[in-house]
Amino acid sequence: METLLINNISEIKKSIKDWKKLNCSIGLVPTMGALHKGHASLIKKAKEMCDKVVVSIFVNPIQFGPNEDYDKYPRTIEKDKNLCEDIGVDIIFAPTPKEMYGENITLSNTELSFVCPPYNIVDCMCGKSRPGHFDGVATVVTKLFNIVEPNYAFFGQKDAQQLFIIKKFVKDLNINVEIIPCPIIRDYDGLAMSSRNTYLSEDERKRALTISQALKKIKSLYSNGITNANILFDTGISILDKNIELDYLEFRDFNTFEKVDKVKENTLVAIAAKVGKTRLIDNEIL
Amino acid sequence: METLLINNISEIKKSIKDWKKLNCSIGLVPTMGALHKGHASLIKKAKEMCDKVVVSIFVNPIQFGPNEDYDKYPRTIEKDKNLCEDIGVDIIFAPTPKEMYGENITLSNTELSFVCPPYNIVDCMCGKSRPGHFDGVATVVTKLFNIVEPNYAFFGQKDAQQLFIIKKFVKDLNINVEIIPCPIIRDYDGLAMSSRNTYLSEDERKRALTISQALKKIKSLYSNGITNANILFDTGISILDKNIELDYLEFRDFNTFEKVDKVKENTLVAIAAKVGKTRLIDNEIL
Repeated sequence: METLLINNISEIKKSIKDWKKLNCSIGLVPTMGALHKGHASLIKKAKEMCDKVVVSIFVNPIQFGPNEDYDKYPRTIEKDKNLCEDIGVDIIFAPTPKEMYGENITLSNTELSFVCPPYNIVDCMCGKSRPGHFDGVATVVTKLFNIVEPNYAFFGQKDAQQLFIIKKFVKDLNINVEIIPCPIIRDYDGLAMSSRNTYLSEDERKRALTISQALKKIKSLYSNGITNANILFDTGISILDKNIELDYLEFRDFNTFEKVDKVKENTLVAIAAKVGKTRLIDNEIL
Repeated sequence: METLLINNISEIKKSIKDWKKLNCSIGLVPTMGALHKGHASLIKKAKEMCDKVVVSIFVNPIQFGPNEDYDKYPRTIEKDKNLCEDIGVDIIFAPTPKEMYGENITLSNTELSFVCPPYNIVDCMCGKSRPGHFDGVATVVTKLFNIVEPNYAFFGQKDAQQLFIIKKFVKDLNINVEIIPCPIIRDYDGLAMSSRNTYLSEDERKRALTISQALKKIKSLYSNGITNANILFDTGISILDKNIELDYLEFRDFNTFEKVDKVKENTLVAIAAKVGKTRLIDNEIL
């Protein structure tokens, strides 16, 4: 089956309308493209659960800070299309920024409406070093939900804070989409799959591996009964390569997103760090 | 036909689902209750255009400031129900704040997700003296849209800034609802219908009438070719009762919401003023 590549909103809405008439269930996998095995696992899950599957590919300008990698973020639409076709995706929705946000506007909150999840879960962790990032994510995800009207939307657990935030604003705003979290997919060497891994040199990749190793060690200590977050923190730090720049290593209750001193079931252990110029994140939910 | 009074979200969603199956078009008239002839005109318009009509009645706590009239805002559900029944409303949706926002939360943006329309149209006019007001409006309207999934939603032009803001975030977020603006309805003496008019003493009402009189005079001068906003402003001010406290008298392009020096077609002339303790608004679109 051929995957349809659609760039404009009115066109995809026509397909959605036809599907709705036929009572098809619709799954949406929102991505920024540069698809890898992690995305593939989300798409496969969507295929299992839904009659029709849409993969959106959109490098969303409003979730990047002025000094971040918006311009150099990998764009590999031909390769992405092949991957989608292989899995049997019905539609790739790949709009331009102009199609999504209109012309001649600054993409700032003085001219655009934003969806703003609560500050207490937005201003910490990744949000602390990426101000405005999660408002940009929440806004584009809301737009995609309104355009595609999916029954289910699929998000990777690698972006754990994003996943928590999306579930929160979907609930707060009564959005009629069920969020399906999908487990982290790791490469052969344990590195969490990410489109940004392509930025890493061979040497950087070796150092980056200490992130997943630190998480693995924390998980194993927890399995052996150690629940003191300070002890687990120190162990994690001791495993991380000395030449990577730690942004955070945090322990949070994944039901409430509050920090915990004593680790328990459903505690999120999350790391963000810069390896060279590349910012990577990874986590485990215990 | 009896109007169904529904208080909880899951129950109204069942009715909506049934209607959608039957391919009914749905009209929503969002209100805070204390219904008057202005609301009645919106509801009648909805009846004309839609197979099914929902009137929501919800005094929305997150759009009131700490020193505003949330507690004393008139609540007249029995009278409202009669009015709705007379016009043939299918469902009144009257949730509690707890049903809409959950329990044990502060209703602030540290714990709740908000829809935030652009600052440049939110921080001026009514938004200037009511910080957070329009974020609260945008958030509750988005929630109601997601709950009721209307094809059309009806708003009065009396709240011109609100109308402009709702049209803006609906467009920005690709919300699938068509906004239908409805003209201002005036009482026998020219006062714009408002649930807050019940606050006015006889003497205050007399003074309040100078608001619509000022607008009428401005409109007539414009009809006679006067387009200089300063001149029209001065004339308006001269007509307003000296004992009412003017908040603003502004001239804005109703396509862009930018202030204008030279009045033309589609210019919004808007007044907000306090008469005694009661804040009133009124406007004309030229």
